Amino acid sequence: MAGSRKDVRDRLLRAALDLFSERGYDRTTAADIADRADVTERTYFRHFSDKREALFDGEGALQHALAGAVAEVPAGLSPSETLLRAFLAMIPALEHEGDLKKRRQAVIAAAPELRERELSKEAHLISGVAEALETRGVRAPVAVLAAVSGIAVLSRARLEWLAGASDDYATLLRTGFADLRAALASEPASPGR
Amino acid sequence: MAGSRKDVRDRLLRAALDLFSERGYDRTTAADIADRADVTERTYFRHFSDKREALFDGEGALQHALAGAVAEVPAGLSPSETLLRAFLAMIPALEHEGDLKKRRQAVIAAAPELRERELSKEAHLISGVAEALETRGVRAPVAVLAAVSGIAVLSRARLEWLAGASDDYATLLRTGFADLRAALASEPASPGR
Repeated sequence: MAGSRKDVRDRLLRAALDLFSERGYDRTTAADIADRADVTERTYFRHFSDKREALFDGEGALQHALAGAVAEVPAGLSPSETLLRAFLAMIPALEHEGDLKKRRQAVIAAAPELRERELSKEAHLISGVAEALETRGVRAPVAVLAAVSGIAVLSRARLEWLAGASDDYATLLRTGFADLRAALASEPASPGR
Repeated sequence: MAGSRKDVRDRLLRAALDLFSERGYDRTTAADIADRADVTERTYFRHFSDKREALFDGEGALQHALAGAVAEVPAGLSPSETLLRAFLAMIPALEHEGDLKKRRQAVIAAAPELRERELSKEAHLISGVAEALETRGVRAPVAVLAAVSGIAVLSRARLEWLAGASDDYATLLRTGFADLRAALASEPASPGR
């Protein structure tokens, strides 16, 4: 079956999702995925280093896009305000192919090995964002902590959106940063909160 | 070679550290570790599920101790102040067997698979701390974000301490929380910071 490089990667991602959902991650091999996508195993390994990587395609592009979004925020804002604006600018990308993302999330939630890999993806996003903040002149330790907590807000918004808790990404992100400020406030929140 | 359960686990940890440092993680098997520790491979697997888990012994105990420390902080403090106090109370445990911890850190830094496992350990600490904060009446989303950013401060202090940047854990922790507040401030930091 012919196809552009991007087509083949898309087919492999869908095949991996189908098989991991049907049989479970442990009972699927890279050869099975290649077979379902109608390519050779060798083609699979030309695209991905192992069976789990089909699910993590686009990781580099996302990291790059996030760093770019941080760079484009107007100067003169605090680190957390900068991150909020960068994340808001990413909403179209975050919403893109939502159904695929929801299926992917379900597969990852079911396999501990994939959850570990997802954490490592998050760690890469954090270092990319921290670097982008440093480039804007934020001190390194502050940049790292802003990135860790900002990515935590983004991840939570993403999970809530994927779970269908809300389809309003902007509000999920704003609420997340407000909760983060409440967590860091030096005064305790009023009772009942 | 005889020994209490704790002795055997300590020997296995040291043997794993020795072999991972000497040969590298990839070129060491669980059988090698058992051999170096003078126990059978079967004994190794009675203690740990695979070769990497010897390095992550004590994870459950640490999670438990941290949650306990959070629970013991006097009431009426903000989430981040609660975490700072809990972490300060953990300093003796954090400093315990510092040389072993430094060696362990060097081994983990050298192997991507171990770094992923370390992230998953951190994720467990985060959920334990978030739960402990919730038990104190902090709203769930605020508790999670406080835990993520608090554990990031703790991790940074730990790495700085292990790297020998300072032997004053309390100052490292206080500076970390101050940096976190700077990251989350709604006003940008003054120039030069």
